[in-house]
Amino acid sequence: MKLATLKNATRDGKLVVVSRDLSRYVVVDAIANTLQQALDNWSEVAPQLEEISNELNEGEREDAAIFEAELCESPLPRAYQWADGSAYVNHVELVRKARGAEIPESFWTDPLMYQGGSDDFIGPRDDIQLPSDDWGVDFEAEVAIITDDVPMAIDAKDAGKHIKLLMLVNDVSLRGLIPGELAKGFGFFQSKPASAFSPVAVTPDELGDHWRDNKVHLPLLSEYNHNAFGKPQAGEDMTFDFAQLIAHAAKTRNLGAGAIIGSGTVSNKQGTEYGTSIVEGGVGYSCIAEVRMIETIRDGKPTTEFMRFGDHIKIDMQDESGNSIFGSIDQTVVKVAN
Amino acid sequence: MKLATLKNATRDGKLVVVSRDLSRYVVVDAIANTLQQALDNWSEVAPQLEEISNELNEGEREDAAIFEAELCESPLPRAYQWADGSAYVNHVELVRKARGAEIPESFWTDPLMYQGGSDDFIGPRDDIQLPSDDWGVDFEAEVAIITDDVPMAIDAKDAGKHIKLLMLVNDVSLRGLIPGELAKGFGFFQSKPASAFSPVAVTPDELGDHWRDNKVHLPLLSEYNHNAFGKPQAGEDMTFDFAQLIAHAAKTRNLGAGAIIGSGTVSNKQGTEYGTSIVEGGVGYSCIAEVRMIETIRDGKPTTEFMRFGDHIKIDMQDESGNSIFGSIDQTVVKVAN
Repeated sequence: MKLATLKNATRDGKLVVVSRDLSRYVVVDAIANTLQQALDNWSEVAPQLEEISNELNEGEREDAAIFEAELCESPLPRAYQWADGSAYVNHVELVRKARGAEIPESFWTDPLMYQGGSDDFIGPRDDIQLPSDDWGVDFEAEVAIITDDVPMAIDAKDAGKHIKLLMLVNDVSLRGLIPGELAKGFGFFQSKPASAFSPVAVTPDELGDHWRDNKVHLPLLSEYNHNAFGKPQAGEDMTFDFAQLIAHAAKTRNLGAGAIIGSGTVSNKQGTEYGTSIVEGGVGYSCIAEVRMIETIRDGKPTTEFMRFGDHIKIDMQDESGNSIFGSIDQTVVKVAN
Repeated sequence: MKLATLKNATRDGKLVVVSRDLSRYVVVDAIANTLQQALDNWSEVAPQLEEISNELNEGEREDAAIFEAELCESPLPRAYQWADGSAYVNHVELVRKARGAEIPESFWTDPLMYQGGSDDFIGPRDDIQLPSDDWGVDFEAEVAIITDDVPMAIDAKDAGKHIKLLMLVNDVSLRGLIPGELAKGFGFFQSKPASAFSPVAVTPDELGDHWRDNKVHLPLLSEYNHNAFGKPQAGEDMTFDFAQLIAHAAKTRNLGAGAIIGSGTVSNKQGTEYGTSIVEGGVGYSCIAEVRMIETIRDGKPTTEFMRFGDHIKIDMQDESGNSIFGSIDQTVVKVAN
């Protein structure tokens, strides 16, 4: 089943069921007005939405309309919980290596995770609006899951069943603000502005065999200014799977229905020390920071610039036939109007 | 105007208007079902709620029922944004001093703030449920505000007008988990479990002259295991006022209606180096950690223990006549059932 949230006059948009090929949608307001409402009552609502999804995919819904990703909010335009892991420890090691630091051994056994802000997500085709492009604007291509209610202190082996939906994420980061914030000791705040999610959220079964071991086994595609930039395998080098990330997040708290948990920047080692770019025959990267780290390690200093107003990022994931699974995130950095 | 959220069968509870003396309430579902709904449409909804509030305070509402804080959720049982400042820099200085570290000069000009989790707040009279009491369980008594929509990059001088409601907070902290999490560099996550808020949220005008300069000028009262523990003035030693905290939070993001921003642990220097306890004639403290810091600085090691299952904390704020303004937070630490 594939779900999306269309923009309307409300803050939470309108829930729709989208066909597998992303061509059509059906309004489901008789079942749930919003995705949060559906998640609040998932065990009752999901089977009803599945039924509509089946009818839609079999061409049996005469009320289906043309689906356009441009009309979408993020599936949850605002959420109660957005916790972003950093499960690809290669990414973390690379960032540290560039400044000559080793990562603590515990990073391989204890997940890194930060508490994100969730009151104002960006639509998947909306501009990334910021007051300045002097802050080292970067994208981070990630996978995320949405849970139902997760009880406190859940064991990782029981956590996988709480994964109800999958999405892609652009976890926008302001690299220039990160060192100062982390030095203060309270983690990210200003350095992690609003994130964007893929137009469509899908149930794990939509991925077939590509969803296993609580990981997505497909390449995550990033195109920067319309050039291929990254295609790492999301299922490789993911040190902590989504069930482990849920268990980490829920160690001392319940997670409410609709909690979003991110994978962190997808990053592959590719049998080399830190991976290679697509131009060099590798699988590339899911953020600019990694390229700059490579440049720093190799050349002593970074040469690739961070994003400026007008720069564009596209994030997508495709099936074997090249069809987009979630619809693509497709965004340009612009100066905020106010 | 005073507002509360009564428990019902839903996740967001039922919005009610409460009388100034906290004795009676009126259901307002013809205007808004939930506090979030009211905040989403505040400019339209607030005047209608004010009208009911006036009638209720003048004894003109025959539909008024007896108000009991025990039946309350936190005013927002779940929220889209919970950003907690640390505006009483004395508190931060004390924590650092105890481990022999100076605070950076920038801490006096650049607010500390962490991104809290907001999907599962505790009711003001509900137990603090945790899997273990070996993690250094502590309360933190604070004041918080709720905003309407705040645009990105707002100037502090324009931010005060976005403060719509005030509450008290118990920002539960797990001190034993903090050093490990902060060492990882991503800030608090497991060390900040669910927070609780006062039964009632009030508009700033309810505080009269005690609300000025975007600060609350009244003592914040903490009672630990039924003994007076703290009564610091929330208006003193608050290095950053709530307008400055809003501007800090909104530097790179919009804040959605219903965003909660906390003051951080209220802490007074009291003309001494780090304050003194109530027993010693001072205004005491708003968390156990501060007492332990004092003990460490004075005696070389802390002697006061953190909270254990069965320990109790009450947080309140009263007017000149000793009447509770927000209703009290009143909680016991217990082992989580599951």
